[in-house]
Amino acid sequence: MSREWLYQTCQPIDAGFETAAREHQAQLTKPPGSLGMLESVAIRLAALQRVAQPSVEHVWISVFAGDHGVAAQNVSAFPQAVTGEMLRNFAHGGAAISVLARALGATLEVVNLGTVNDPGELPEVRRAIIAATTADFCQQAAMSVAQLDAAFTAGADSVRAAHASGAQLFVGGEMGIANTTSATALACALLGETPDRLTGAGTGLDSAGIAHKSAVIARGLALHADANDAVEQLRCLGGFEIAALTGAYIAAAQLGMPVLVDGFITTVAALAAVRINPSVREGLLFAHCSQERGHRIVLDALAATPLLDLGMRLGEASGAATAVPLLRLACVLHNQMATFAQAGVSTA
Amino acid sequence: MSREWLYQTCQPIDAGFETAAREHQAQLTKPPGSLGMLESVAIRLAALQRVAQPSVEHVWISVFAGDHGVAAQNVSAFPQAVTGEMLRNFAHGGAAISVLARALGATLEVVNLGTVNDPGELPEVRRAIIAATTADFCQQAAMSVAQLDAAFTAGADSVRAAHASGAQLFVGGEMGIANTTSATALACALLGETPDRLTGAGTGLDSAGIAHKSAVIARGLALHADANDAVEQLRCLGGFEIAALTGAYIAAAQLGMPVLVDGFITTVAALAAVRINPSVREGLLFAHCSQERGHRIVLDALAATPLLDLGMRLGEASGAATAVPLLRLACVLHNQMATFAQAGVSTA
Repeated sequence: MSREWLYQTCQPIDAGFETAAREHQAQLTKPPGSLGMLESVAIRLAALQRVAQPSVEHVWISVFAGDHGVAAQNVSAFPQAVTGEMLRNFAHGGAAISVLARALGATLEVVNLGTVNDPGELPEVRRAIIAATTADFCQQAAMSVAQLDAAFTAGADSVRAAHASGAQLFVGGEMGIANTTSATALACALLGETPDRLTGAGTGLDSAGIAHKSAVIARGLALHADANDAVEQLRCLGGFEIAALTGAYIAAAQLGMPVLVDGFITTVAALAAVRINPSVREGLLFAHCSQERGHRIVLDALAATPLLDLGMRLGEASGAATAVPLLRLACVLHNQMATFAQAGVSTA
Repeated sequence: MSREWLYQTCQPIDAGFETAAREHQAQLTKPPGSLGMLESVAIRLAALQRVAQPSVEHVWISVFAGDHGVAAQNVSAFPQAVTGEMLRNFAHGGAAISVLARALGATLEVVNLGTVNDPGELPEVRRAIIAATTADFCQQAAMSVAQLDAAFTAGADSVRAAHASGAQLFVGGEMGIANTTSATALACALLGETPDRLTGAGTGLDSAGIAHKSAVIARGLALHADANDAVEQLRCLGGFEIAALTGAYIAAAQLGMPVLVDGFITTVAALAAVRINPSVREGLLFAHCSQERGHRIVLDALAATPLLDLGMRLGEASGAATAVPLLRLACVLHNQMATFAQAGVSTA
């Protein structure tokens, strides 16, 4: 499949709906600005959805799973088998994101892009197998050109399904043992940062484990130092699920569907998407700052102000799912509060 | 009415349920600690509710409204008539807290403790009129002893009604033109702080307005410098709604009903409650840090870690209402996630 679609301009924010939403907020019975980010989020959603009354009742969550060759370098607190085991847990409704999606009434799609411990066919899990795992980026590029394209396409396919179902908000998540290693390496390459500044504990490494992980990332960065654009850096250092998220964010922004970005790994995928296609940026909302060390730096590089900072570090779209009710409340406040005139309340 | 009840010991946290909840969290299919504050909140709620499966589906919100004599000193961006006008807006469902309570399926009780521009009988508004307004604390004590006791009792009455209805969480809110002036004065007295450090913009003062407000507070503090305990400081500088909140928090903690504290004014009321009866503290959860200048300082004095920081500054319990979905998600994650053993997922 051609890669040209990645570069097509995204649907811009509608300035007319943005202005109307801003003026409407100023007339509601509250001191101007007193709802803080709930105001700015409602205005942004109105502008992105091109409506007077924004809504995110219909939420679509896609969790992309894939294994990483670099797991062989002993960079995770958990064994590689967990990626496949968690697919089963997603399917059976026991994972954090399963519980959250149910509580939110959100559609949850899980996409298996390739797992060493393949659980096979599972209810509610879409199989889009690229390979059992990426290659170890300390030895060679993580993906071939064809594998990278397949991952972009898998992400875009999820977004098209979400859009066709009438979803008003796209949320992406990820699962894959060793994927903070991959995401950190990619973030270093995209930002020109060093691994000692960005490498964190992932699922729970101690300080010796973090030092080892940082050294592994440094080896990968040295091997792929000539990868000089975001697509090539993603191919050399990324993972199937990270590339799928990048493709998904680009496709969502092109369709004008607002995106709520989750944690560290998804924010790195968002950074890659914005580097590939800068017009993606204004379609992105950011759910939270996680506890993973490099997250704040990547958020800052995107000039992103996340809604939450709860010390979460799970992935799976769990942080984004937790922020969905805030977006919903922002919308109902915007849509249902009385104006000063309607309520007969005096202004300042 | 006797004031002895204020000092009765509150229901302590149950250490057995707390330990059980902590151990349960460690077995759920996620890296230990990876849900951050959603874990600690679920554990705290289990310990406070004395259950294995905490729940805050049934939420009771009481918004206490009252006018302030110190409004005569021109300390607010809005005219005093707004207190009464907003009571009408609450009753008619157009205020922010009306919209939020509806969206959450929460019970909303509004209590009129005394308004200069009295709207009279309104649907869903409980009349517990103490006086049309407090006195101007620049001239005399804001409340008489009998008025203060009536305010404490009004708050406790709301909590008893909430408890009798089966509510699992008590949320207090406030409305009253000039009440950040009163709350700031009280916070200064309780903490030994100076008004220039704590005084903020309230509903929207400019810097000259803030300087004037700070000077008014300084005059009040000088006049009531001999008020030397929390009850007397509350009587001299507080307001009907602030004292009602203080009484409500004490009563809720005594009944073992968890409290979610809202913004600046409610946090000052919580500080007063803890100063009067220190055993109140462990029953309190804190929803957010608002944009009002003194809020962080008062939160710190209570060693409180709020869930949200969204730049809100509306009051009315709006920040607490916005945090309710986070508590609910924390509970369903705790209650519904699979354990490693149940899901057949490998541990670290």
